[in-house]
Amino acid sequence: MSFPDVKYDGSMGRWEPNASGRLQQAAMQLYFEQGFERTTVAEIAEQAGLTERTFFRHFADKREVLFWGARALQDSLVDSVLHAAPLTSPLVAVAQALEGVSAMFEERREGVQQRQSIIAANPELQERELIKLAVLAAAIANALRQRGVKEPTASLAAEAGIAVFRIAFESWVSQSEERSLRQVISDSFTELEHVATDR
Amino acid sequence: MSFPDVKYDGSMGRWEPNASGRLQQAAMQLYFEQGFERTTVAEIAEQAGLTERTFFRHFADKREVLFWGARALQDSLVDSVLHAAPLTSPLVAVAQALEGVSAMFEERREGVQQRQSIIAANPELQERELIKLAVLAAAIANALRQRGVKEPTASLAAEAGIAVFRIAFESWVSQSEERSLRQVISDSFTELEHVATDR
Repeated sequence: MSFPDVKYDGSMGRWEPNASGRLQQAAMQLYFEQGFERTTVAEIAEQAGLTERTFFRHFADKREVLFWGARALQDSLVDSVLHAAPLTSPLVAVAQALEGVSAMFEERREGVQQRQSIIAANPELQERELIKLAVLAAAIANALRQRGVKEPTASLAAEAGIAVFRIAFESWVSQSEERSLRQVISDSFTELEHVATDR
Repeated sequence: MSFPDVKYDGSMGRWEPNASGRLQQAAMQLYFEQGFERTTVAEIAEQAGLTERTFFRHFADKREVLFWGARALQDSLVDSVLHAAPLTSPLVAVAQALEGVSAMFEERREGVQQRQSIIAANPELQERELIKLAVLAAAIANALRQRGVKEPTASLAAEAGIAVFRIAFESWVSQSEERSLRQVISDSFTELEHVATDR
């Protein structure tokens, strides 16, 4: 048995093995070495051994390469919140979800650090990151409401959880942090409890 | 005794009584009636009985008219945090600061509601609002550090406080909310305490 020869025409583009991953890697390297602003899509494509056309089949623009994982992160967090054990309190459901995704970042800390330094150097990227986090918080609040959590509890737990995550993440990304991301997140939730009850 | 005749030349522009306030009022009315995107600076100036030149002497662009009070709000919050009574806990200092500015919004609820509906209708303005709130949180965290609060406590208190404020504000702006903004903020801080300790 043989498979038919499939010929892609120009309008469809050729299939390139792991094009998206190669483009991401090339983009990250160039952004890191020569800066985000100074890097063109043509350079990214060339570095990856692909065409600009292939780039735009995978990413809307050069900014999107840096936020490519946002949707998967959101899906994972929402799924985790929705499937938390019955009677789990809202903030615990959020904390568990965030601790659950921490391994994903741990595995590639150097890449995560590179990405953070690229974003820190560019206000437009910082804005995009803020928006991404706001969308994440809204999605988590929505998942909590689906679990029957009322407002404003759902939004407060989601927003406070994302604030904890952001602060924990920034601390973990810094070179001097020796705890695991999971541990920093867990410690930060404990600290939030202290902050909220120290009144 | 007489004052010398002062003649302003064209490059300086004439002095116009309360130009900034008139431009703001005109802009809000036009944004609300015909939408932010469809309103031009020329229309705003005409509505206010002023020139485009005068508009740009007061605002960088038509977006800035909506965020004109951000700096005063930040200064007021930072000042309040810095001058909280000794030994006031971080989150209480933030809560007091936010409750302290609530009268400013109460006095002009209708204008605040108009502004919110203009922003809600435009993603670009929503992004600007997010950035403004992030800058506010960073300024409050900085004020807490000046009071001797360590990290991550300072950032957690500031970020959680701003999250509470945003959620309280959105609830208060909605037509159906009958509590005062100060009361909604106070209740939301109590709810944050419940959320954070329900683990």
